[in-house]
Amino acid sequence: MPRKINIAVLGATGLVGRTFLRILEERHFPVGELRALASERSEGKLVPFGAGEIPVHAVREDSFDGADFALIAVDDSVSREWAPKAARAGAVVVDKSGAWRMDPSVPLVVPEVNPDDAFEHDGIIAGPNCSTIQLVVALAPIHRVNPITRIIVDSYQAVSGTGSAAVEELKAQNRAIVKGEHYEIDVYPHQIALNVLPHIGSFSDNGYCSEEIKLVNETRKILHSPDMAISATTVRVPVEVGHSEAVHIELTHPMTAAEVRDLLRAAPGVAVVDDPSGSQYPLPLDAAGRDEVFVGRIRNDISHPHGIAMWIVSDNLRKGAALNAVQVAELLMARGALPSKQRG
Amino acid sequence: MPRKINIAVLGATGLVGRTFLRILEERHFPVGELRALASERSEGKLVPFGAGEIPVHAVREDSFDGADFALIAVDDSVSREWAPKAARAGAVVVDKSGAWRMDPSVPLVVPEVNPDDAFEHDGIIAGPNCSTIQLVVALAPIHRVNPITRIIVDSYQAVSGTGSAAVEELKAQNRAIVKGEHYEIDVYPHQIALNVLPHIGSFSDNGYCSEEIKLVNETRKILHSPDMAISATTVRVPVEVGHSEAVHIELTHPMTAAEVRDLLRAAPGVAVVDDPSGSQYPLPLDAAGRDEVFVGRIRNDISHPHGIAMWIVSDNLRKGAALNAVQVAELLMARGALPSKQRG
Repeated sequence: MPRKINIAVLGATGLVGRTFLRILEERHFPVGELRALASERSEGKLVPFGAGEIPVHAVREDSFDGADFALIAVDDSVSREWAPKAARAGAVVVDKSGAWRMDPSVPLVVPEVNPDDAFEHDGIIAGPNCSTIQLVVALAPIHRVNPITRIIVDSYQAVSGTGSAAVEELKAQNRAIVKGEHYEIDVYPHQIALNVLPHIGSFSDNGYCSEEIKLVNETRKILHSPDMAISATTVRVPVEVGHSEAVHIELTHPMTAAEVRDLLRAAPGVAVVDDPSGSQYPLPLDAAGRDEVFVGRIRNDISHPHGIAMWIVSDNLRKGAALNAVQVAELLMARGALPSKQRG
Repeated sequence: MPRKINIAVLGATGLVGRTFLRILEERHFPVGELRALASERSEGKLVPFGAGEIPVHAVREDSFDGADFALIAVDDSVSREWAPKAARAGAVVVDKSGAWRMDPSVPLVVPEVNPDDAFEHDGIIAGPNCSTIQLVVALAPIHRVNPITRIIVDSYQAVSGTGSAAVEELKAQNRAIVKGEHYEIDVYPHQIALNVLPHIGSFSDNGYCSEEIKLVNETRKILHSPDMAISATTVRVPVEVGHSEAVHIELTHPMTAAEVRDLLRAAPGVAVVDDPSGSQYPLPLDAAGRDEVFVGRIRNDISHPHGIAMWIVSDNLRKGAALNAVQVAELLMARGALPSKQRG
């Protein structure tokens, strides 16, 4: 019988942290000791796990002692502080923040796409940004047989990508609008209910926002294509869970939409939903709570001889965050690359 | 003193029809006799005009007698029946439906873009689809000095583009979700509240939907560029008024974002809102009720050496429909090309 794996979850009270706990349970992960960690102010809170609840502890220097994996979903600055400590304590860190993704010594891993990279870690493995994960899961199977030379992606991103305060803000605004009451604009710089905001993260001098730059840089790193031409406009929409992406790619050689569809039907982690005449295409409302990356509206792009257009949707909290991290842990375990404690 | 102009509005009870009446008044259009026309079932209804209301009449064979202009915003099939009758009665028809746009004998006109085409009419002038109008108003000034070779546009379209039943459905769904009640899904094939639908119109065999094909064909016709490469993914979002578009263009020669910004600042009908670091960019909520086509997020597209990316937003009922049609009438009047009754 395989031994139990000790897990520390840092950021356990957040949307992604809670999803870590749910997914560990759903997938019958062989959890030994489970530590739910967060900041001081969450000390003593309870978070759901299994049929019950477990207490949350404030993260401390010794919080990761004996942990096999540290699953981390916190702000970049918090991760910069704690991920190295967890790694030094012997845990393999799978980090969901943006702190480590572009560090050359840290692998950036989507198990369906670049599993081998996971084994090059030095204690920390990064998970990509939510909007990147669903893009590369859908595009890697195509890129492998017919290299993609350019990607244009415009996104429709759910508020849960920002966190639970944003979900509450959208709900509160919708509630107030229905009741004709005053409402606050706090999490986002503008009202998000009945609106769309072409702004995710902070802006660079080149006019791109940080979410767009993440899509570009992370996709290049994961696909081992440092020169791939990529552009994006990332947009927040009044949806709770589920990111959608309108994607236009250019391929090295022409390919039919039917060939792309067949490739994606056979691809791990992908579900093709593509009968537009029957009103069947991926929708964020359908993707919420599901594990797959859903792809539809697959068609030859009429603006380019080697172009393909498609529509990609996935649950940003699951495959876009927590699920991907748990799959990284499963990947290491499946190939016998158990955390350092075991290797020592 | 210029003579008064007799106007017949067909489809007067619809969202665009009501906006026709509001805009005629706002712009102090020299309205003589004003006839509000609709189908039989609207006979006797009242629609707002000026400080009061005017009665709606069922459209009949003699409804257009003596009218200088017929402003038409009805379903394609209804327009196919009545637009030719209105033209035969001597009115110049400005039609908002999709019935006539691609007819080679019918000019498709956006006054800021191709005003001269308006004078080639044979009784009927078509106004483009809402998503096309805002695109060409923003792109024509660039295309004139540096021909655009390819356009990719992904849209975020408000439910008012579908009509008043869709606005009511979005409101009813939001209300029911807030109250935890059951709700209907009727106008769209899926829930639109808290969701996005990559489906506007009906689908063709090539996988594109009719809204996307309109964007392609109408843009080519208006810009007199029958071979321009254009692709689109059109998406309905839970916004009441205001269509948004993420646009990526390729130009013949390189151009800086600053040059594009300067061009657009001087362009008729365009308002540049482009200070992303100050959270200033076009938003549908801000554009609703306004006449301009708002452009922001203007940047050199990092995926193409001659590429520009931008974000275009406009009120789909005003510039996207009613305002554009009234501007066509004003254009004919300003150049002395009054309707046939006067020319005879």
